[in-house]
Parts: sequence; structure tokens; C-alpha cells
Amino acid sequence: MISETNPAMPQWLSQRARLTPNRIAFETKDEQLTFNQLLARVRQAASALRSAGIHPSDHVASLQGNTLACAVTVHALMMLGAVMVPLNTRLSVDELAGQIQDSDCRLLITDQKFEQKASQAIGRINCALIHTEKWTDCEPSPDDFDKEIQLGNPCTIIFTSGTTGHPKGVVLTYGNHWWNANASLINLGLSPDDKWLCCVPLFHVSGLSILMKSVIYGMPVYLQKKFYPQGVNQLIMDGGITHISVVASMLQRMMDALGNQNTYPKTLRCILLGGGPVPKSLLQRCLDQEMPIYQTYGMSETASQAVTLPPDYMLEKAGSAGQPLFPLQVRISGATPHEPGEILIKGPTVFSHYLNNPEATREAFNGEWFHSGDIGYLDEDGFLFVLDRRKDLIISGGENVYPAEIESVLNGCAGISRAGVIGIPDTQWGRVPIAFVSLKEGANFSETELINSCKEHLASYKVPKRIFTLPSLPENASHKLLRRKLYKDYEKMNRVK
Amino acid sequence: MISETNPAMPQWLSQRARLTPNRIAFETKDEQLTFNQLLARVRQAASALRSAGIHPSDHVASLQGNTLACAVTVHALMMLGAVMVPLNTRLSVDELAGQIQDSDCRLLITDQKFEQKASQAIGRINCALIHTEKWTDCEPSPDDFDKEIQLGNPCTIIFTSGTTGHPKGVVLTYGNHWWNANASLINLGLSPDDKWLCCVPLFHVSGLSILMKSVIYGMPVYLQKKFYPQGVNQLIMDGGITHISVVASMLQRMMDALGNQNTYPKTLRCILLGGGPVPKSLLQRCLDQEMPIYQTYGMSETASQAVTLPPDYMLEKAGSAGQPLFPLQVRISGATPHEPGEILIKGPTVFSHYLNNPEATREAFNGEWFHSGDIGYLDEDGFLFVLDRRKDLIISGGENVYPAEIESVLNGCAGISRAGVIGIPDTQWGRVPIAFVSLKEGANFSETELINSCKEHLASYKVPKRIFTLPSLPENASHKLLRRKLYKDYEKMNRVK
Repeated sequence: MISETNPAMPQWLSQRARLTPNRIAFETKDEQLTFNQLLARVRQAASALRSAGIHPSDHVASLQGNTLACAVTVHALMMLGAVMVPLNTRLSVDELAGQIQDSDCRLLITDQKFEQKASQAIGRINCALIHTEKWTDCEPSPDDFDKEIQLGNPCTIIFTSGTTGHPKGVVLTYGNHWWNANASLINLGLSPDDKWLCCVPLFHVSGLSILMKSVIYGMPVYLQKKFYPQGVNQLIMDGGITHISVVASMLQRMMDALGNQNTYPKTLRCILLGGGPVPKSLLQRCLDQEMPIYQTYGMSETASQAVTLPPDYMLEKAGSAGQPLFPLQVRISGATPHEPGEILIKGPTVFSHYLNNPEATREAFNGEWFHSGDIGYLDEDGFLFVLDRRKDLIISGGENVYPAEIESVLNGCAGISRAGVIGIPDTQWGRVPIAFVSLKEGANFSETELINSCKEHLASYKVPKRIFTLPSLPENASHKLLRRKLYKDYEKMNRVK
Repeated sequence: MISETNPAMPQWLSQRARLTPNRIAFETKDEQLTFNQLLARVRQAASALRSAGIHPSDHVASLQGNTLACAVTVHALMMLGAVMVPLNTRLSVDELAGQIQDSDCRLLITDQKFEQKASQAIGRINCALIHTEKWTDCEPSPDDFDKEIQLGNPCTIIFTSGTTGHPKGVVLTYGNHWWNANASLINLGLSPDDKWLCCVPLFHVSGLSILMKSVIYGMPVYLQKKFYPQGVNQLIMDGGITHISVVASMLQRMMDALGNQNTYPKTLRCILLGGGPVPKSLLQRCLDQEMPIYQTYGMSETASQAVTLPPDYMLEKAGSAGQPLFPLQVRISGATPHEPGEILIKGPTVFSHYLNNPEATREAFNGEWFHSGDIGYLDEDGFLFVLDRRKDLIISGGENVYPAEIESVLNGCAGISRAGVIGIPDTQWGRVPIAFVSLKEGANFSETELINSCKEHLASYKVPKRIFTLPSLPENASHKLLRRKLYKDYEKMNRVK
């Protein structure tokens, strides 16, 4: 008799604080918060946000670091029924302004650290600014925020770069987050001593999903403001951390800082390793040192991990991303085992739609099957092997970088006739973008100036590490850029060197 | 983009066997089955059932003991998309025939032990019989059963006695079972060494819910054919069992067999104690011996436990059934803290409807709130205290017994003018039914004969332990039976003794 269309559930944090008020919700270097204490802060924040005119269903942007205040923001917006738009703090002012406008946010929440960037971002658009520091002065809200949530309602909008160069807003519902937390729970289990180290950004789905697990499971999260390998290693060696989410570049740095002679204590039960391909040398090292690596494959559109390889299969299924989580299904379009094709995903963690983009949404779905755009195959046991990420996608340190986005900035620079971007291997970040440009007649070329122009408009991880000139860029008959050929040009250049 | 109306999921057993083929699914005294081996048997059974004409949505009755074959039946029917109607093996032939007809079953699945009873039950109705023993001869089904399940579809129909004396079929969907398993998972956690001892009947929601947990979690279940306290204690003392579901009368017998000097090893993490009120003396003894008791409150209509008290609160909240599981809500109709009223429950584990009984369904719901009929209060921390079970309900050894059902049998006996049934305290079963009858003019009274008549028509636990005569039964002005007065009459009789 429950509404199947949009099942209701008690507001997550309120329910959690009722059930386990004195369990630790968050730990940082400086403080600890129980769920009850967290709820008190969230009530203050919700009160402040309502005074700022926020109503249910409003979209509210956030530009914050990995702080308790940011975690409070997540819960306060849920309590108000508002939809959070977490912004990547590494984006340029232009990029931030674009995403705030695209998502119709009339309020941007920020903190001391990102205040200046936030002010600049809203300088030319119609959006107010609110500082989390002010919330501590507020009267906590009465109980009236403390209501139900509807699983079908939107909860967060996370922007991902698109193949066309224009970022798309991935609308995730409460249900998407709920199902992801539950699917992961079935996969990883849950013990009273579990504590998840969150050193991935809260503005990514990887960090957000840890917060959702925390409140749904009643599990403490250690929130690290900034990732640094020695600090993370120390926390793990101290024995309190049982789970950690990382991308390959982070894990590589952790291993380097750890040294070959050391390994982590058995208290660390799970290293959830996502965000793109993992170098074989790194996997081998983890295998040698018996690290509990769970390789994963997922994306914003699947509310984080969708496919996972448990450590017991690391050797037998080396190179595989594993099998779908229990409620999910994966298939390769029109393929038999071992035959590559597009990776399709179906299940209740798959996102609702792209914000204000019915065309992209239509293209992304065939019925209930989400077309990831990635290429892979399934082996005879149903283990997924990812061969190629989405068309031309460059994954750099876990961040998605689409060539088209960088090219559109370069194409707007004076003197540039056409630009093409590819991703080249990098020991630290996996891949980094570089650019090729052809010049307009009589134009001068300055790599430094062009790179500076990119820095003005793009997040630093998207700025090409090098820019080279070519007399003309490779095109097909209909003048479409052939990035494949650029990769070959780059190989040739390297051979000459 | 997932259908919110009826989310699809891979068929549970197939998915489980894909993910963890070699984990143990079931253990009995005689054998062990991995999920892969279980799947093979289920494919055979599904094949046999399809040959017997079973199609998706068909209702299929089962009269079986706590055997592997019964567990195979549950999964085979799910694989076919058929709806299982598990019948209580203690019911009389008349009662069985009634439930088979009420639920429109054209097939009854049985085993060697209950073959005779099953044959008698279908003797006068249009229903075929199939023996699980025959399944081993079948060709396993091809992969074509191996499809998705829809969470909104009906999965099982469990009959519960009703206040009117006519049993009602509680329709539970896949979603109800799914959400119950997940809600319990959040509450109890999950470790790789978990093993649940199932010595409660598989025809009750308590036993069924253990099976659902097994396949969803990938957790082994030790299936005990018949509950006997020494056997259960031995299994626990051997150290392999981490969880067990019991009702108070079972736990009492286990404690008695264990003796005051002994306690269970720490490997036993959870004794889930449901099925009605628990004597204080028993709770005190468990507390003294530091038993990990999780008291619960739930019913078929909530797909088993809905409210649970963890062991840490046994002392502080003595007598409470605890707090709702995470996705559920409980309130007392129109009451403030400590004020008693009807217990209302809302959430995705609450059943869909009563089979072919729109009136009972309408009466049971106010919007999405299920009216349990039980009386209780919430304290200031939101802990539920159950005061009175549903109107006149007698819970005897975890089985629900409604006076009206017994009265209607007695009223049909020769010489009886009117009958009234109440439940009196019993050290072994909690409560047992006794009856009072008034006789027609000139009729003779034989307690033994009347009890024998009841045995013909009723499950043994419903047969009154004693039958007394009264010149007339207490009635109100509109001739409604006043059972309250019968309780007083009984007290008086006892005082006289």
C-alpha cells in the first residue's frame, strides 16, 4: 500500500539521529560530531537557508572544500527539500558562473577559502552569496523541516563535462543515492567498527556517496580537508580507518609515500579504487602487498560505483572492473562474451535525466538502459573489462576532461584557426591534456600566452600541459576533427625526439 | 530513468549465483548447497512446475516442512514469476482446503511428510498435487526463466487469522521482501562469517524473510527441520551460528536446556526475538547472561520485523519493542508521548493488500499508514511499547489465534448455543485458548467430544485446552459477546480453586 511511484521515507538525518543519536557521524583533525550534534548544526543551517529564501525544489549551488560545513550543507538542503548543485572548486570563474546559471541557482553557498572565487563567479549573474561561517549565529530551526523525503525527488545535480564541450547536469534522486548506498552495503557488508575516510571531493559523486552511506548506515566518516598521502597513510596506520575511496593517482602517491617495505594494517578492509583506468604496475604492487583493493567502475550518472571487483578476484580477473552490484545489470550492446561493444547499465542507481537537456537524456537512454558511451566486454563469467572510456574522454587524476571543452576555449583565442586536444600518458595523473593548434594567417604563436588564456577560463586540470602548432589540423571530409590522427602526430613527434 | 512505478532488478537467485557462485547458500544436518548448486536445483524445480502448467502470476500453494526442497520451491516460484502461498502445516484439512480455495491455487506442492494431509485437503476441491521428490528427475530449465523481477509484483501470500474468524491473505510484493532485508541489513550489519539459523517455519514470514536475506546478502542459512532446544543449543555452542530468529516460547526452552550456569559463545551476535510479548523473567535471564537479544515487533503485514530494540537498550528501555527500522515510521494515532493508542506503521515493507478483500484492505489503511490494530505508546525518545495485541488476539507460541475462528467451529457443534474463547497464560506457550459454552436446552455436554470436534477443523494450537459450560455467555445490549467478562469469570473460577 506504499506509493510505488514515489515511496516516502523519514528524513534521513532526523531518523539517524533518532536511532543512534550518540554515534559519531564525522571526525576531522580538529573535532568529532555525533549524529545528534550534526543534526543541531543542520537545523541551524536549514534555518539560515530558509531565511535566505530557499524553498523546497530550489536549486542551490555550493562552492566549498571538504569541510564539516559542506557536509552540514548537504544535509541542510535535504532537510529543506532543496536540490544541491555542488561545484568543483577547481573550476574557473567562467565555468562556475556557467554552471550556476545553467542550473538556475539563485543562491551560492561558500566558505572562507573559496569566498573570493565565489564572489567573482556571481559578479555578473543574478545569484546571492551565503557564507557557512554565519550559520553558527542562527537559531536552530524548529521541527517543521523534519519531514519525509520522497525517493523519486531530485536530491543533487552534479555537472559532468560532456562530449560536446558543454557540461551536463546529472540529476540524481534520493532514490539513486539510497540504492547506491544499499547496493554497496550488500557488497561490502557493515560492522560496528566501520569508519570511512573521505579524502575525495564532496563535490564529486564519490565524496557525496560516502556522506549518504554515513547517514543511512549510521557510520562515522573521517573527513580530510585536503588529500596528502602522508596524512592518509598515518590515519590508516593508526588503525581507525576501515574504508577509503581513492582514484589511481591518489593510491600511487600513497604507495610511494608508504615505501615498498610497508603495508597497511588489517584494520583497513576496503580500498575502493575508482575514477578510471588503473596502471598494471600499481595493481601488481597492491597485489604483492595484499592490499584489499576493490576496483570499481562507475560515474556520476550511476550515483558512483556500479561495477566492482573484490580483492579475491584481483589475480584471476586482472584488468577487470568486476561485476555489477546486486540490484544492477550490465550488458554490452549486441555482443556475445568477449566481444567488445558499448557498456549499458540498468538499475535503480541510474540517474533520472540531464538537467534542461532532453536531447542528451534521450540519447543516453534506450528504455531503461543507460548508454555509458564507454567500450568494454564481458567475459564468460560476466566480469566487465573496460577497454575505452567515453569517446575522447581524458581522465586526469580522477577528473573527467573532454577535449571539446578545451578546444572551444582555444578556438576563441585571438589568432587561432582551429584547435585539437588529446590526452597523453602521465605518471602522476594517468593522463593530461595537450593541444594542437593551427594559426590564422599572419598570427603569432605564444604557447605561454595561450596557456594563460586557458587558465582564465578553465579549471587547472583541464589546461593543456603543452600546446603545439600544426599547419592544419587533420579533418575528415565533412571537416570533423580527427583526434585519432593527432594521437599519431604526437607519437611521431615523440619518436623524432 | 529507472521506472519508479515498478523498478526492475535481476532475478535474485540468478544474480546471487553469478556474483558468489561458490558461497554456501544452505546447510542442513545432512548437506551443504552453494548458490550455484541451489540454482541448479531451482532450475529443475522451475522446469517441473512449468510442465505442470504454472505460468507467471499463478498462485501456487505449498504444504512443506523446513526442508531444502521448500527453500527450492520458494526460489523456483520466484523464477517463474508465480506467487507462493505457503500453508501452515499445523492447519486442519478443512483450514488448508479453505486457504487453497480462497487464494485460487490450482496446484499444491507438498513433500513426503505432508503428502497425506495434502491429499485430504485437495480431496474435495479442484487442485492438483505435485511432490518435490519428483523434481530431481527433471531436466533443468534453460536460461529462459532467468529474467528480471519487478519490485511491485506480488511474491507471496501469507494467510493470517483475522478478527472476524476468517483468515486473510496478506499479499507481499518483491519490494516488501527486498526492503525488509535491506532495512534489517542497515540495522544488524553484515559480515563474511554471518550464518543465520532458521528454525522458525518457512511458511511464516519470519522464516521466509531469512530466505530472502540469504539470497540478497549472499549469506548461508542453516535450515533446521524441526525446532528442538538441545539441537539448536548445540549448533550455537559449536560456534558457527551468528544469527537466530525465535519466539519467546522457543527461547524459554533453549534457556531451560542450556541451564543457568551456561551462556552462548560470542560468535552468536543476534537473537532476533519476535512473535509477541516476552515474559519479564525470560528477558531478565537473557540480560543477566549478556545474551545479544534484539526484541522485535512485526507481523506478516510488515514483511516481518518493523520495530527492533538492540541489546544496548535492553536495560534502559526494558519492555520496549524498540524503534522502527531505518526506512519505516511508527506513530500512535492521535497521541502525544506516553499516551496509548493504535500503532500505525508506514514504509516500503508494509504489504500491498489483503487478497480478494478490498473491505479489509480499506479498513487497514489510512492513506499510506497501516493500522495494526495493536495498542501501544511511544516514549519521549520514540521507543515503542506494545500494550495490547490486536483486538482479542491470542499469541500462542508465536502463532496468531483469533477467538472468533475457534468460536465459529464451536458454534457449529451439536448442542452448543453460544461459545466464547479467551487466551489464558501458559508457561510454555505464552498464552493458550480456552472456551466457554452455553448449551441448547436438553443438550448433553462432553468436553472431550467438543475438543475432538475442534481438532477435526482447527490446527492443534487453536484447539481450546479446556472447555467450560456457563448458563449463558455475557453479552452487551446488542447481543455482542463480551469477552472481557469471560476473562473475569475465569479469574473468579481460579480464585475459587
